[in-house]
Amino acid sequence: MAIELYWGSGSPFAWRVMLTLELKRLPYESKLLEFSKQEHKTPQYLQLNPRGKVPTLKDGEFVLYESIAIMAYLDRKYPAPPIFGTTAEQTGSIWRSVMECESYLLSAGDKVVRPLFFGRGLEKVDEIQHAAQTIRQELKRINDSLASSNWLVGAEISAPDIAIFPVVQLLLRAAGKEAAQSLDLGFIPLSETFPNIARWVQRIEQLPNYQRTYPPHWRG
Amino acid sequence: MAIELYWGSGSPFAWRVMLTLELKRLPYESKLLEFSKQEHKTPQYLQLNPRGKVPTLKDGEFVLYESIAIMAYLDRKYPAPPIFGTTAEQTGSIWRSVMECESYLLSAGDKVVRPLFFGRGLEKVDEIQHAAQTIRQELKRINDSLASSNWLVGAEISAPDIAIFPVVQLLLRAAGKEAAQSLDLGFIPLSETFPNIARWVQRIEQLPNYQRTYPPHWRG
Repeated sequence: MAIELYWGSGSPFAWRVMLTLELKRLPYESKLLEFSKQEHKTPQYLQLNPRGKVPTLKDGEFVLYESIAIMAYLDRKYPAPPIFGTTAEQTGSIWRSVMECESYLLSAGDKVVRPLFFGRGLEKVDEIQHAAQTIRQELKRINDSLASSNWLVGAEISAPDIAIFPVVQLLLRAAGKEAAQSLDLGFIPLSETFPNIARWVQRIEQLPNYQRTYPPHWRG
Repeated sequence: MAIELYWGSGSPFAWRVMLTLELKRLPYESKLLEFSKQEHKTPQYLQLNPRGKVPTLKDGEFVLYESIAIMAYLDRKYPAPPIFGTTAEQTGSIWRSVMECESYLLSAGDKVVRPLFFGRGLEKVDEIQHAAQTIRQELKRINDSLASSNWLVGAEISAPDIAIFPVVQLLLRAAGKEAAQSLDLGFIPLSETFPNIARWVQRIEQLPNYQRTYPPHWRG
């Protein structure tokens, strides 16, 4: 039975799974949910994912949600190419980098992205700028670790590249919004602020079938 | 060379790694850092862990931080008993449960625990009670999943049991503080609010060498 992926356009979490599926060249059936129609909150979907979030993966009878868990599942089930390392040390360093994104970058990112995308909370300038400072610190770490390497951990693309890339893309999109201009977030132009990240973004954009993973409503 | 663990008393993140080491019966050298003396911010320690947090594990020459990454490393290096599953489906479900803790329970928990432990922000009653509601929802999910099983995923103890247990212990300790009485958090007595979690806590407390992992300054 084919893999089915329930996703939504612009979700960085769904994007991670699409990049993983493309990297492993796994065919899948796309189930695009329209957030505006609340298709992620229907009784049928909530049976698959009681949190009503995306992504959810269905592989035969097995259903799984939480993007990082899906990446770990896919890597175990379809090991080539490996994205969680082939030695214990690689595995450890890869998970460190993934968890640093989840623990530090994501929560700060949310505090900047949400007001800029949805227009609510834009008046909390101090909070947004405090979060932006954390984001810049995290981006600096990432930029530094890309100074001598094409990828975040080791010589090949692995889970942290895939996990962090959509978050960076989301931050860049938020930073490009008109309301962001007065906030002085310090994220763009990326080629000047974090040049190693800018080159890494290009590297990922050149992966085969990258375009298939790009959020459709961002093309407009 | 022996495993060295840098940890601090009361850190739920360090506690996770200690439980993992004991479960796998791995001997280790304890390096207890005193937070009150800022021993986690010395230049020597920052060389091991630039974030100045605990835990950090040193296994021979290999250094790793971020608790969940250390658990993944230890499981890969010392597989018995496995804590991240033996099939792709188990691995996926285990990571889902771990990531749900990291994504939902931890951030809400922090908003309740921090004011109660350090006395700052206690006046933000609405924020604390909003976080407490999220925590109760997460605890309800956990309680439900323990209704028909001794452990969170599958028939044996695994990573989510180890990852979530110290967080639950921290929440219970915070809920027992005098300042918590007027907040009506709804966490305790656990045997009445979430009886399956209460039994699961006892199960973990009965593991061999559990007492060695208990935060020393909590004994007082």
